[in-house]
Amino acid sequence: MSPNSPIVVLDSGLGGLTVVRALQATLPNEQIVYFGDTARLPYGSKTAGTVATFVKQIISHLSSLNPKHVLIACNTATALALPAARAAFPDLSISGVIEPGAKAAVIAAGAKHVPVIGVIATEATVKSRAYEKAIHRRRSHARMLLRPAPLLVPIIEEGRSREDPLVRLALRQYLKPLMDRGLDVLVLGCTHYPILKDEIARIVGDTVRVIDSAEQCADDVARRLGACGMLRAGGNGVGEALRCFVTDDPERFARLGSRFLGVEMATPTLVSPDELYAAPLPPVRAIAS
Amino acid sequence: MSPNSPIVVLDSGLGGLTVVRALQATLPNEQIVYFGDTARLPYGSKTAGTVATFVKQIISHLSSLNPKHVLIACNTATALALPAARAAFPDLSISGVIEPGAKAAVIAAGAKHVPVIGVIATEATVKSRAYEKAIHRRRSHARMLLRPAPLLVPIIEEGRSREDPLVRLALRQYLKPLMDRGLDVLVLGCTHYPILKDEIARIVGDTVRVIDSAEQCADDVARRLGACGMLRAGGNGVGEALRCFVTDDPERFARLGSRFLGVEMATPTLVSPDELYAAPLPPVRAIAS
Repeated sequence: MSPNSPIVVLDSGLGGLTVVRALQATLPNEQIVYFGDTARLPYGSKTAGTVATFVKQIISHLSSLNPKHVLIACNTATALALPAARAAFPDLSISGVIEPGAKAAVIAAGAKHVPVIGVIATEATVKSRAYEKAIHRRRSHARMLLRPAPLLVPIIEEGRSREDPLVRLALRQYLKPLMDRGLDVLVLGCTHYPILKDEIARIVGDTVRVIDSAEQCADDVARRLGACGMLRAGGNGVGEALRCFVTDDPERFARLGSRFLGVEMATPTLVSPDELYAAPLPPVRAIAS
Repeated sequence: MSPNSPIVVLDSGLGGLTVVRALQATLPNEQIVYFGDTARLPYGSKTAGTVATFVKQIISHLSSLNPKHVLIACNTATALALPAARAAFPDLSISGVIEPGAKAAVIAAGAKHVPVIGVIATEATVKSRAYEKAIHRRRSHARMLLRPAPLLVPIIEEGRSREDPLVRLALRQYLKPLMDRGLDVLVLGCTHYPILKDEIARIVGDTVRVIDSAEQCADDVARRLGACGMLRAGGNGVGEALRCFVTDDPERFARLGSRFLGVEMATPTLVSPDELYAAPLPPVRAIAS
Protein backbone atom coordinates (compact mmCIF):
# COMPACT_ATOMS: atom_id res chain seq x y z
CA MET A 1 0.00 0.00 0.00
CA SER A 2 1.06 3.59 -0.61
CA PRO A 3 -0.15 7.15 0.07
CA ASN A 4 -2.31 6.71 -3.03
CA SER A 5 -4.14 3.72 -1.50
CA PRO A 6 -7.73 4.36 -0.45
CA ILE A 7 -9.18 4.83 3.02
CA VAL A 8 -11.94 2.27 3.64
CA VAL A 9 -14.91 3.40 5.73
CA LEU A 10 -17.42 0.77 6.83
CA ASP A 11 -20.78 0.92 8.56
CA SER A 12 -23.94 -1.11 8.97
CA GLY A 13 -25.73 1.25 6.62
CA LEU A 14 -26.06 4.98 6.07
CA GLY A 15 -24.83 6.57 9.32
CA GLY A 16 -21.13 6.35 8.50
CA LEU A 17 -21.68 8.80 5.65
CA THR A 18 -21.77 11.59 8.28
CA VAL A 19 -18.16 10.59 9.05
CA VAL A 20 -17.26 10.45 5.34
CA ARG A 21 -18.52 14.02 5.05
CA ALA A 22 -16.11 15.13 7.80
CA LEU A 23 -13.26 13.07 6.28
CA GLN A 24 -13.78 14.68 2.88
CA ALA A 25 -13.64 18.14 4.47
CA THR A 26 -10.48 17.36 6.47
CA LEU A 27 -8.69 15.24 3.85
CA PRO A 28 -9.92 16.40 0.42
CA ASN A 29 -7.11 14.62 -1.45
CA GLU A 30 -7.94 11.15 -0.20
CA GLN A 31 -9.75 8.42 -2.08
CA ILE A 32 -12.50 7.00 0.09
CA VAL A 33 -14.26 3.66 -0.34
CA TYR A 34 -17.46 3.22 1.68
CA PHE A 35 -19.13 -0.08 2.56
CA GLY A 36 -22.70 -0.18 3.99
CA ASP A 37 -23.95 -3.59 5.16
CA THR A 38 -27.57 -2.82 4.29
CA ALA A 39 -28.64 -6.49 4.00
CA ARG A 40 -27.83 -7.13 7.65
CA LEU A 41 -28.39 -3.75 9.31
CA PRO A 42 -29.02 -2.61 11.98
CA TYR A 43 -26.13 -3.83 14.13
CA GLY A 44 -27.38 -2.03 17.26
CA SER A 45 -29.60 -4.83 18.58
CA LYS A 46 -27.17 -7.68 17.78
CA THR A 47 -24.43 -9.47 19.75
CA ALA A 48 -20.65 -8.98 19.72
CA GLY A 49 -19.98 -12.35 18.05
CA THR A 50 -22.37 -11.68 15.20
CA VAL A 51 -21.25 -8.09 14.58
CA ALA A 52 -17.54 -9.07 14.75
CA THR A 53 -18.13 -11.75 12.09
CA PHE A 54 -19.89 -9.24 9.84
CA VAL A 55 -17.09 -6.65 10.23
CA LYS A 56 -14.31 -9.16 9.58
CA GLN A 57 -16.07 -10.40 6.45
CA ILE A 58 -16.31 -6.84 5.12
CA ILE A 59 -12.66 -6.01 5.83
CA SER A 60 -11.58 -9.28 4.25
CA HIS A 61 -13.65 -8.53 1.16
CA LEU A 62 -12.16 -5.03 0.80
CA SER A 63 -8.57 -6.01 1.59
CA SER A 64 -7.96 -6.57 -2.13
CA LEU A 65 -8.11 -2.76 -2.46
CA ASN A 66 -4.96 -2.51 -0.27
CA PRO A 67 -6.47 0.16 2.01
CA LYS A 68 -3.99 2.32 3.89
CA HIS A 69 -6.51 2.69 6.69
CA VAL A 70 -9.85 1.13 7.68
CA LEU A 71 -12.25 3.28 9.68
CA ILE A 72 -15.13 1.52 11.41
CA ALA A 73 -17.58 4.43 11.20
CA CYS A 74 -20.28 2.80 13.31
CA ASN A 75 -20.37 3.06 17.08
CA THR A 76 -21.89 -0.40 17.58
CA ALA A 77 -19.33 -2.07 15.30
CA THR A 78 -16.50 -0.15 17.01
CA ALA A 79 -17.78 -1.13 20.47
CA LEU A 80 -18.30 -4.79 19.62
CA ALA A 81 -15.76 -5.58 16.90
CA LEU A 82 -12.70 -3.26 16.84
CA PRO A 83 -10.38 -5.50 18.94
CA ALA A 84 -11.50 -8.60 17.01
CA ALA A 85 -10.90 -6.84 13.68
CA ARG A 86 -7.41 -5.70 14.74
CA ALA A 87 -6.55 -9.21 15.90
CA ALA A 88 -7.75 -10.74 12.63
CA PHE A 89 -5.89 -8.22 10.43
CA PRO A 90 -2.70 -7.35 12.35
CA ASP A 91 -1.03 -5.69 9.36
CA LEU A 92 -3.90 -3.31 8.66
CA SER A 93 -4.30 0.09 10.29
CA ILE A 94 -7.85 0.04 11.75
CA SER A 95 -9.59 2.59 13.94
CA GLY A 96 -13.07 3.32 15.23
CA VAL A 97 -15.30 6.20 16.27
CA ILE A 98 -15.45 5.72 20.05
CA GLU A 99 -11.94 6.83 21.10
CA PRO A 100 -12.22 10.11 19.09
CA GLY A 101 -15.71 10.68 20.54
CA ALA A 102 -14.52 10.05 24.09
CA LYS A 103 -11.57 12.40 23.58
CA ALA A 104 -13.84 15.15 22.26
CA ALA A 105 -16.22 14.68 25.20
CA VAL A 106 -13.45 15.03 27.76
CA ILE A 107 -12.09 18.16 26.04
CA ALA A 108 -15.61 19.63 26.00
CA ALA A 109 -16.03 18.87 29.72
CA GLY A 110 -13.25 21.39 30.39
CA ALA A 111 -11.78 21.78 33.84
CA LYS A 112 -14.81 20.64 35.84
CA HIS A 113 -13.70 18.08 38.45
CA VAL A 114 -16.75 15.80 38.17
CA PRO A 115 -18.30 16.49 34.77
CA VAL A 116 -21.57 14.77 33.94
CA ILE A 117 -21.19 13.16 30.51
CA GLY A 118 -24.22 11.60 28.84
CA VAL A 119 -24.17 9.22 25.89
CA ILE A 120 -27.13 8.27 23.72
CA ALA A 121 -26.47 5.23 21.56
CA THR A 122 -27.82 1.88 20.39
CA GLU A 123 -28.73 -0.86 22.86
CA ALA A 124 -25.55 -2.81 21.98
CA THR A 125 -23.20 0.20 22.30
CA VAL A 126 -24.63 1.09 25.72
CA LYS A 127 -24.40 -2.51 26.91
CA SER A 128 -20.75 -2.78 25.78
CA ARG A 129 -19.76 0.07 28.18
CA ALA A 130 -17.17 1.08 25.56
CA TYR A 131 -17.81 4.84 26.01
CA GLU A 132 -17.69 4.55 29.78
CA LYS A 133 -14.28 2.84 29.62
CA ALA A 134 -12.87 5.23 26.99
CA ILE A 135 -13.96 8.31 28.94
CA HIS A 136 -12.92 7.00 32.37
CA ARG A 137 -9.42 6.25 31.03
CA ARG A 138 -9.10 9.98 30.32
CA ARG A 139 -11.13 11.40 33.22
CA SER A 140 -11.67 8.89 36.00
CA HIS A 141 -14.02 11.19 37.97
CA ALA A 142 -16.49 11.78 35.13
CA ARG A 143 -20.04 10.79 36.01
CA MET A 144 -21.46 8.77 33.12
CA LEU A 145 -25.11 8.61 32.07
CA LEU A 146 -25.73 6.05 29.32
CA ARG A 147 -29.04 5.76 27.55
CA PRO A 148 -30.11 3.51 24.68
CA ALA A 149 -32.23 5.38 22.12
CA PRO A 150 -33.28 2.58 19.75
CA LEU A 151 -35.99 4.54 17.90
CA LEU A 152 -33.71 7.29 16.63
CA VAL A 153 -32.13 5.25 13.81
CA PRO A 154 -35.49 4.12 12.33
CA ILE A 155 -36.89 7.64 12.83
CA ILE A 156 -33.98 9.10 10.84
CA GLU A 157 -34.13 6.36 8.18
CA GLU A 158 -37.84 7.12 7.73
CA GLY A 159 -36.76 10.61 6.65
CA ARG A 160 -38.73 12.51 9.31
CA SER A 161 -37.82 16.15 9.75
CA ARG A 162 -36.76 17.78 13.04
CA GLU A 163 -40.08 19.63 13.16
CA ASP A 164 -42.09 16.37 13.27
CA PRO A 165 -43.84 16.18 16.67
CA LEU A 166 -42.91 12.50 16.97
CA VAL A 167 -39.21 13.32 16.51
CA ARG A 168 -39.44 15.97 19.23
CA LEU A 169 -41.34 13.68 21.59
CA ALA A 170 -38.85 10.80 21.14
CA LEU A 171 -35.89 13.12 21.74
CA ARG A 172 -37.48 14.65 24.84
CA GLN A 173 -38.28 11.17 26.23
CA TYR A 174 -34.70 9.99 25.74
CA LEU A 175 -32.97 13.22 26.86
CA LYS A 176 -35.12 14.38 29.80
CA PRO A 177 -33.75 11.78 32.30
CA LEU A 178 -30.21 12.88 31.40
CA MET A 179 -31.02 16.60 31.61
CA ASP A 180 -32.64 16.08 35.02
CA ARG A 181 -29.30 14.85 36.33
CA GLY A 182 -27.28 17.95 35.45
CA LEU A 183 -25.76 17.05 32.11
CA ASP A 184 -22.60 18.97 31.04
CA VAL A 185 -21.74 17.10 27.83
CA LEU A 186 -23.88 14.91 25.57
CA VAL A 187 -22.16 12.48 23.18
CA LEU A 188 -24.08 11.43 20.07
CA GLY A 189 -22.95 7.81 20.24
CA CYS A 190 -24.31 6.70 16.87
CA THR A 191 -23.29 8.04 13.47
CA HIS A 192 -26.95 8.51 12.49
CA TYR A 193 -27.67 11.03 15.23
CA PRO A 194 -25.79 14.06 13.77
CA ILE A 195 -28.75 14.34 11.35
CA LEU A 196 -30.79 15.52 14.37
CA LYS A 197 -27.96 17.44 16.06
CA ASP A 198 -29.59 20.89 15.81
CA GLU A 199 -32.83 19.69 17.39
CA ILE A 200 -30.95 17.78 20.11
CA ALA A 201 -28.90 20.92 20.89
CA ARG A 202 -32.10 22.98 21.10
CA ILE A 203 -33.67 20.54 23.56
CA VAL A 204 -30.67 20.17 25.89
CA GLY A 205 -30.01 23.94 25.79
CA ASP A 206 -26.92 26.16 25.65
CA THR A 207 -25.34 24.86 28.85
CA VAL A 208 -24.80 21.37 27.40
CA ARG A 209 -22.07 20.72 24.82
CA VAL A 210 -23.26 18.28 22.16
CA ILE A 211 -20.48 16.07 20.73
CA ASP A 212 -20.76 14.60 17.26
CA SER A 213 -17.54 12.60 16.89
CA ALA A 214 -17.32 12.86 13.09
CA GLU A 215 -14.86 15.78 12.98
CA GLN A 216 -12.74 14.41 15.81
CA CYS A 217 -12.73 11.12 13.96
CA ALA A 218 -11.52 12.74 10.74
CA ASP A 219 -8.73 14.51 12.67
CA ASP A 220 -7.78 11.17 14.23
CA VAL A 221 -7.47 9.50 10.81
CA ALA A 222 -5.45 12.47 9.49
CA ARG A 223 -3.09 12.22 12.47
CA ARG A 224 -2.63 8.45 12.01
CA LEU A 225 -1.88 8.79 8.30
CA GLY A 226 0.41 11.79 8.84
CA ALA A 227 2.41 9.90 11.48
CA CYS A 228 3.37 7.18 9.00
CA GLY A 229 3.81 9.40 5.95
CA MET A 230 0.71 8.07 4.27
CA LEU A 231 -1.17 11.29 3.49
CA ARG A 232 -1.89 11.67 -0.21
CA ALA A 233 -0.18 14.66 -1.81
CA GLY A 234 -1.91 14.55 -5.17
CA GLY A 235 -5.60 14.89 -5.86
CA ASN A 236 -7.62 17.83 -7.00
CA GLY A 237 -8.01 19.25 -3.48
CA VAL A 238 -11.78 19.47 -3.72
CA GLY A 239 -12.60 15.87 -2.90
CA GLU A 240 -12.28 12.68 -4.89
CA ALA A 241 -15.35 10.76 -6.04
CA LEU A 242 -16.65 8.49 -3.31
CA ARG A 243 -16.88 4.78 -4.21
CA CYS A 244 -19.66 2.96 -2.39
CA PHE A 245 -20.57 -0.70 -1.93
CA VAL A 246 -23.72 -2.01 -0.21
CA THR A 247 -25.07 -5.51 0.49
CA ASP A 248 -28.68 -4.64 -0.46
CA ASP A 249 -30.85 -2.08 -2.26
CA PRO A 250 -28.35 0.33 -3.88
CA GLU A 251 -31.18 2.61 -5.07
CA ARG A 252 -32.59 3.14 -1.54
CA PHE A 253 -29.06 3.83 -0.27
CA ALA A 254 -28.41 6.48 -2.91
CA ARG A 255 -31.84 8.08 -2.29
CA LEU A 256 -31.40 8.34 1.49
CA GLY A 257 -27.63 8.77 1.50
CA SER A 258 -27.52 12.31 0.17
CA ARG A 259 -29.09 13.52 3.41
CA PHE A 260 -26.15 12.07 5.35
CA LEU A 261 -23.42 13.06 2.90
CA GLY A 262 -24.74 16.55 2.25
CA VAL A 263 -24.51 16.16 -1.55
CA GLU A 264 -26.17 13.97 -4.18
CA MET A 265 -24.55 10.56 -4.52
CA ALA A 266 -24.20 7.97 -7.28
CA THR A 267 -25.86 4.54 -6.98
CA PRO A 268 -23.46 2.22 -5.13
CA THR A 269 -22.25 -1.21 -6.29
CA LEU A 270 -24.03 -4.27 -4.90
CA VAL A 271 -22.02 -6.93 -3.04
CA SER A 272 -24.33 -9.77 -2.02
CA PRO A 273 -23.86 -11.28 1.46
CA ASP A 274 -23.12 -14.61 -0.30
CA GLU A 275 -19.90 -13.07 -1.66
CA LEU A 276 -18.87 -12.10 1.87
CA TYR A 277 -19.38 -15.64 3.12
CA ALA A 278 -17.52 -17.03 0.11
CA ALA A 279 -14.37 -14.96 0.75
CA PRO A 280 -11.63 -16.68 2.74
CA LEU A 281 -10.56 -14.97 5.98
CA PRO A 282 -8.05 -13.19 6.11
CA PRO A 283 -5.62 -12.75 3.18
CA VAL A 284 -4.06 -9.64 4.70
CA ARG A 285 -0.48 -10.70 5.33
CA ALA A 286 0.03 -11.66 1.72
CA ILE A 287 -1.22 -8.27 0.54
CA ALA A 288 0.85 -6.25 3.00
CA SER A 289 4.14 -7.95 2.15
CA MET B 1 -42.79 -37.21 6.82
CA SER B 2 -45.87 -38.26 8.79
CA PRO B 3 -48.66 -36.71 10.91
CA ASN B 4 -46.13 -36.75 13.76
CA SER B 5 -43.72 -34.53 11.82
CA PRO B 6 -43.40 -30.94 13.07
CA ILE B 7 -44.82 -27.74 11.63
CA VAL B 8 -42.03 -25.26 10.97
CA VAL B 9 -42.83 -21.56 11.51
CA LEU B 10 -40.26 -19.01 10.38
CA ASP B 11 -39.94 -15.27 10.79
CA SER B 12 -37.32 -12.53 10.75
CA GLY B 13 -37.55 -12.31 14.53
CA LEU B 14 -40.23 -12.19 17.19
CA GLY B 15 -43.43 -11.25 15.35
CA GLY B 16 -44.22 -14.77 14.11
CA LEU B 17 -44.74 -15.84 17.72
CA THR B 18 -48.16 -14.14 17.56
CA VAL B 19 -49.01 -16.67 14.83
CA VAL B 20 -47.56 -19.55 16.88
CA ARG B 21 -49.90 -18.53 19.70
CA ALA B 22 -52.90 -18.88 17.38
CA LEU B 23 -51.56 -22.16 15.94
CA GLN B 24 -51.17 -23.64 19.43
CA ALA B 25 -54.76 -22.66 20.27
CA THR B 26 -56.16 -24.14 17.03
CA LEU B 27 -53.90 -27.20 16.81
CA PRO B 28 -52.87 -28.12 20.37
CA ASN B 29 -51.58 -31.57 19.38
CA GLU B 30 -49.01 -30.31 16.90
CA GLN B 31 -45.27 -30.04 17.44
CA ILE B 32 -44.10 -26.61 16.37
CA VAL B 33 -40.55 -25.56 15.53
CA TYR B 34 -39.92 -21.82 15.33
CA PHE B 35 -37.02 -20.10 13.58
CA GLY B 36 -36.29 -16.38 14.15
CA ASP B 37 -33.58 -14.82 11.94
CA THR B 38 -32.50 -12.33 14.61
CA ALA B 39 -28.99 -11.80 13.17
CA ARG B 40 -30.40 -10.40 9.93
CA LEU B 41 -33.71 -8.84 11.00
CA PRO B 42 -35.60 -6.73 10.11
CA TYR B 43 -36.61 -7.90 6.64
CA GLY B 44 -39.03 -5.00 6.11
CA SER B 45 -36.55 -2.55 4.58
CA LYS B 46 -34.74 -5.11 2.39
CA THR B 47 -35.13 -6.32 -1.21
CA ALA B 48 -36.89 -9.41 -2.60
CA GLY B 49 -33.65 -11.05 -3.69
CA THR B 50 -32.03 -10.72 -0.28
CA VAL B 51 -35.11 -11.83 1.69
CA ALA B 52 -35.73 -14.80 -0.64
CA THR B 53 -32.13 -15.97 -0.11
CA PHE B 54 -32.54 -15.72 3.67
CA VAL B 55 -35.84 -17.66 3.63
CA LYS B 56 -34.51 -20.43 1.38
CA GLN B 57 -31.45 -20.84 3.61
CA ILE B 58 -33.67 -21.25 6.68
CA ILE B 59 -35.99 -23.77 5.03
CA SER B 60 -33.00 -25.72 3.74
CA HIS B 61 -31.46 -25.76 7.22
CA LEU B 62 -34.70 -27.03 8.82
CA SER B 63 -35.55 -29.55 6.10
CA SER B 64 -33.64 -32.22 8.05
CA LEU B 65 -36.56 -32.11 10.52
CA ASN B 66 -38.88 -33.40 7.75
CA PRO B 67 -41.54 -30.75 8.40
CA LYS B 68 -45.05 -31.62 7.25
CA HIS B 69 -45.70 -27.91 6.70
CA VAL B 70 -43.67 -24.69 6.60
CA LEU B 71 -45.46 -21.48 7.54
CA ILE B 72 -43.75 -18.22 6.64
CA ALA B 73 -45.15 -16.20 9.56
CA CYS B 74 -43.78 -12.86 8.39
CA ASN B 75 -45.66 -10.61 6.00
CA THR B 76 -42.51 -9.23 4.35
CA ALA B 77 -41.05 -12.71 3.81
CA THR B 78 -44.41 -13.95 2.46
CA ALA B 79 -44.70 -10.98 0.11
CA LEU B 80 -41.14 -11.20 -1.18
CA ALA B 81 -40.19 -14.88 -0.91
CA LEU B 82 -43.15 -17.29 -0.92
CA PRO B 83 -43.12 -18.07 -4.67
CA ALA B 84 -39.30 -18.43 -4.62
CA ALA B 85 -39.47 -20.76 -1.62
CA ARG B 86 -42.16 -22.93 -3.25
CA ALA B 87 -40.11 -23.13 -6.44
CA ALA B 88 -36.95 -24.10 -4.53
CA PHE B 89 -38.70 -26.78 -2.43
CA PRO B 90 -41.43 -28.23 -4.67
CA ASP B 91 -42.01 -31.24 -2.39
CA LEU B 92 -42.63 -29.19 0.72
CA SER B 93 -45.99 -27.76 1.74
CA ILE B 94 -45.32 -24.04 2.28
CA SER B 95 -47.77 -21.23 3.04
CA GLY B 96 -47.69 -17.62 4.16
CA VAL B 97 -49.71 -15.07 6.08
CA ILE B 98 -50.95 -12.79 3.30
CA GLU B 99 -53.60 -15.01 1.65
CA PRO B 100 -55.27 -15.78 5.02
CA GLY B 101 -55.13 -12.08 5.95
CA ALA B 102 -56.64 -11.05 2.61
CA LYS B 103 -59.40 -13.64 2.99
CA ALA B 104 -60.22 -12.42 6.50
CA ALA B 105 -60.30 -8.81 5.28
CA VAL B 106 -62.74 -9.60 2.47
CA ILE B 107 -65.02 -11.55 4.85
CA ALA B 108 -64.92 -8.63 7.30
CA ALA B 109 -65.82 -6.19 4.51
CA GLY B 110 -69.20 -7.97 4.24
CA ALA B 111 -71.59 -7.15 1.45
CA LYS B 112 -70.46 -3.58 0.80
CA HIS B 113 -69.97 -3.11 -2.96
CA VAL B 114 -66.87 -0.89 -2.73
CA PRO B 115 -65.35 -1.54 0.69
CA VAL B 116 -62.37 0.59 1.73
CA ILE B 117 -59.66 -1.77 2.98
CA GLY B 118 -56.56 -0.33 4.58
CA VAL B 119 -53.31 -2.16 5.21
CA ILE B 120 -50.48 -1.03 7.48
CA ALA B 121 -47.24 -2.96 6.92
CA THR B 122 -43.49 -2.67 6.40
CA GLU B 123 -42.04 -0.64 3.56
CA ALA B 124 -41.19 -3.84 1.61
CA THR B 125 -44.65 -5.43 2.05
CA VAL B 126 -46.40 -2.26 0.86
CA LYS B 127 -44.05 -1.92 -2.11
CA SER B 128 -44.67 -5.56 -3.14
CA ARG B 129 -48.43 -4.86 -3.57
CA ALA B 130 -49.02 -8.44 -2.37
CA TYR B 131 -52.07 -7.50 -0.24
CA GLU B 132 -53.55 -5.44 -3.03
CA LYS B 133 -53.32 -8.39 -5.44
CA ALA B 134 -54.61 -10.96 -2.90
CA ILE B 135 -57.61 -8.80 -1.98
CA HIS B 136 -58.45 -7.74 -5.53
CA ARG B 137 -58.49 -11.40 -6.63
CA ARG B 138 -61.35 -11.90 -4.12
CA ARG B 139 -63.07 -8.51 -4.39
CA SER B 140 -62.07 -6.59 -7.48
CA HIS B 141 -63.99 -3.44 -6.46
CA ALA B 142 -62.31 -3.03 -3.07
CA ARG B 143 -60.62 0.34 -2.66
CA MET B 144 -57.16 -0.26 -1.22
CA LEU B 145 -55.23 2.12 1.05
CA LEU B 146 -51.68 0.92 1.74
CA ARG B 147 -49.45 2.62 4.27
CA PRO B 148 -45.93 1.73 5.42
CA ALA B 149 -45.54 2.09 9.19
CA PRO B 150 -41.80 1.45 9.68
CA LEU B 151 -41.58 2.70 13.27
CA LEU B 152 -44.10 0.22 14.71
CA VAL B 153 -41.73 -2.77 14.77
CA PRO B 154 -38.93 -0.94 16.64
CA ILE B 155 -41.52 0.66 18.95
CA ILE B 156 -42.87 -2.80 19.85
CA GLU B 157 -39.38 -4.33 20.16
CA GLU B 158 -38.44 -1.52 22.57
CA GLY B 159 -41.20 -2.86 24.84
CA ARG B 160 -43.24 0.35 24.96
CA SER B 161 -46.77 0.04 26.34
CA ARG B 162 -49.94 1.15 24.57
CA GLU B 163 -50.29 4.02 27.06
CA ASP B 164 -46.96 5.56 26.00
CA PRO B 165 -47.71 8.93 24.34
CA LEU B 166 -45.19 8.17 21.61
CA VAL B 167 -46.98 4.93 20.71
CA ARG B 168 -50.29 6.81 20.48
CA LEU B 169 -48.77 9.61 18.40
CA ALA B 170 -47.13 7.18 15.96
CA LEU B 171 -50.37 5.20 15.55
CA ARG B 172 -52.41 8.37 15.01
CA GLN B 173 -49.92 9.65 12.43
CA TYR B 174 -50.04 6.38 10.48
CA LEU B 175 -53.80 5.76 10.80
CA LYS B 176 -55.27 9.26 10.42
CA PRO B 177 -54.76 9.47 6.60
CA LEU B 178 -56.55 6.10 6.26
CA MET B 179 -59.40 7.07 8.61
CA ASP B 180 -59.91 10.32 6.70
CA ARG B 181 -60.71 8.28 3.58
CA GLY B 182 -63.58 6.28 5.07
CA LEU B 183 -61.90 3.06 6.17
CA ASP B 184 -64.12 -0.05 6.59
CA VAL B 185 -61.47 -2.69 7.33
CA LEU B 186 -57.90 -2.33 8.57
CA VAL B 187 -55.46 -5.21 8.04
CA LEU B 188 -52.51 -5.46 10.43
CA GLY B 189 -50.04 -6.45 7.73
CA CYS B 190 -47.12 -7.34 10.00
CA THR B 191 -47.04 -10.06 12.63
CA HIS B 192 -45.68 -7.62 15.24
CA TYR B 193 -48.71 -5.35 15.13
CA PRO B 194 -51.20 -7.57 17.02
CA ILE B 195 -49.28 -6.54 20.18
CA LEU B 196 -50.87 -3.08 19.70
CA LYS B 197 -54.22 -4.32 18.37
CA ASP B 198 -56.33 -2.98 21.27
CA GLU B 199 -54.89 0.52 20.93
CA ILE B 200 -55.22 0.45 17.14
CA ALA B 201 -58.89 -0.63 17.49
CA ARG B 202 -59.50 2.19 19.97
CA ILE B 203 -58.03 4.78 17.57
CA VAL B 204 -59.89 3.66 14.42
CA GLY B 205 -63.15 3.23 16.37
CA ASP B 206 -66.01 0.73 16.35
CA THR B 207 -66.97 1.22 12.71
CA VAL B 208 -63.67 -0.22 11.44
CA ARG B 209 -62.98 -3.97 11.61
CA VAL B 210 -59.33 -4.64 12.57
CA ILE B 211 -57.89 -7.84 11.04
CA ASP B 212 -55.03 -9.65 12.68
CA SER B 213 -54.40 -12.58 10.35
CA ALA B 214 -52.97 -14.94 13.01
CA GLU B 215 -56.20 -16.87 13.65
CA GLN B 216 -57.13 -17.06 9.97
CA CYS B 217 -53.61 -18.28 9.34
CA ALA B 218 -53.92 -21.04 11.93
CA ASP B 219 -57.24 -22.12 10.36
CA ASP B 220 -55.56 -22.16 6.96
CA VAL B 221 -52.76 -24.45 8.20
CA ALA B 222 -55.33 -26.75 9.90
CA ARG B 223 -57.32 -26.98 6.65
CA ARG B 224 -54.19 -27.77 4.59
CA LEU B 225 -53.06 -30.50 7.01
CA GLY B 226 -56.57 -31.94 7.32
CA ALA B 227 -56.96 -32.12 3.52
CA CYS B 228 -53.96 -34.46 3.23
CA GLY B 229 -54.58 -36.47 6.39
CA MET B 230 -51.62 -34.96 8.18
CA LEU B 231 -53.20 -33.72 11.42
CA ARG B 232 -51.60 -35.25 14.48
CA ALA B 233 -53.95 -37.43 16.52
CA GLY B 234 -51.73 -37.97 19.56
CA GLY B 235 -50.36 -35.33 21.88
CA ASN B 236 -51.54 -34.16 25.24
CA GLY B 237 -54.13 -31.77 23.80
CA VAL B 238 -52.83 -28.81 25.80
CA GLY B 239 -49.97 -27.84 23.52
CA GLU B 240 -46.59 -29.40 22.94
CA ALA B 241 -43.40 -27.64 24.02
CA LEU B 242 -42.28 -25.10 21.42
CA ARG B 243 -38.77 -25.60 20.01
CA CYS B 244 -37.09 -22.37 18.95
CA PHE B 245 -33.98 -21.52 16.94
CA VAL B 246 -32.54 -18.04 16.42
CA THR B 247 -29.51 -16.68 14.54
CA ASP B 248 -28.49 -14.24 17.30
CA ASP B 249 -28.97 -13.40 20.99
CA PRO B 250 -31.14 -16.25 22.35
CA GLU B 251 -31.46 -14.51 25.75
CA ARG B 252 -32.95 -11.31 24.28
CA PHE B 253 -35.35 -13.42 22.21
CA ALA B 254 -36.57 -15.35 25.26
CA ARG B 255 -36.91 -12.13 27.28
CA LEU B 256 -38.98 -10.29 24.65
CA GLY B 257 -40.71 -13.37 23.20
CA SER B 258 -43.05 -14.06 26.09
CA ARG B 259 -44.93 -10.85 25.28
CA PHE B 260 -45.68 -12.20 21.80
CA LEU B 261 -46.36 -15.78 22.82
CA GLY B 262 -48.46 -14.93 25.87
CA VAL B 263 -46.51 -17.32 28.13
CA GLU B 264 -42.94 -17.57 29.41
CA MET B 265 -40.59 -19.24 26.96
CA ALA B 266 -37.35 -21.24 27.21
CA THR B 267 -34.10 -19.86 25.78
CA PRO B 268 -33.88 -20.86 22.08
CA THR B 269 -31.00 -22.68 20.39
CA LEU B 270 -28.48 -20.57 18.47
CA VAL B 271 -27.86 -21.27 14.77
CA SER B 272 -25.16 -18.92 13.48
CA PRO B 273 -25.65 -17.37 10.01
CA ASP B 274 -22.42 -19.15 8.97
CA GLU B 275 -24.22 -22.48 9.33
CA LEU B 276 -26.98 -21.25 7.01
CA TYR B 277 -24.47 -20.26 4.34
CA ALA B 278 -22.62 -23.57 4.76
CA ALA B 279 -25.75 -25.69 4.06
CA PRO B 280 -26.22 -26.80 0.46
CA LEU B 281 -29.46 -25.76 -1.24
CA PRO B 282 -31.89 -27.66 -1.44
CA PRO B 283 -31.79 -31.30 -0.28
CA VAL B 284 -35.57 -31.57 -0.20
CA ARG B 285 -36.27 -34.18 -2.87
CA ALA B 286 -34.02 -36.74 -1.18
CA ILE B 287 -35.83 -36.27 2.12
CA ALA B 288 -39.32 -36.47 0.68
CA SER B 289 -38.69 -39.71 -1.15
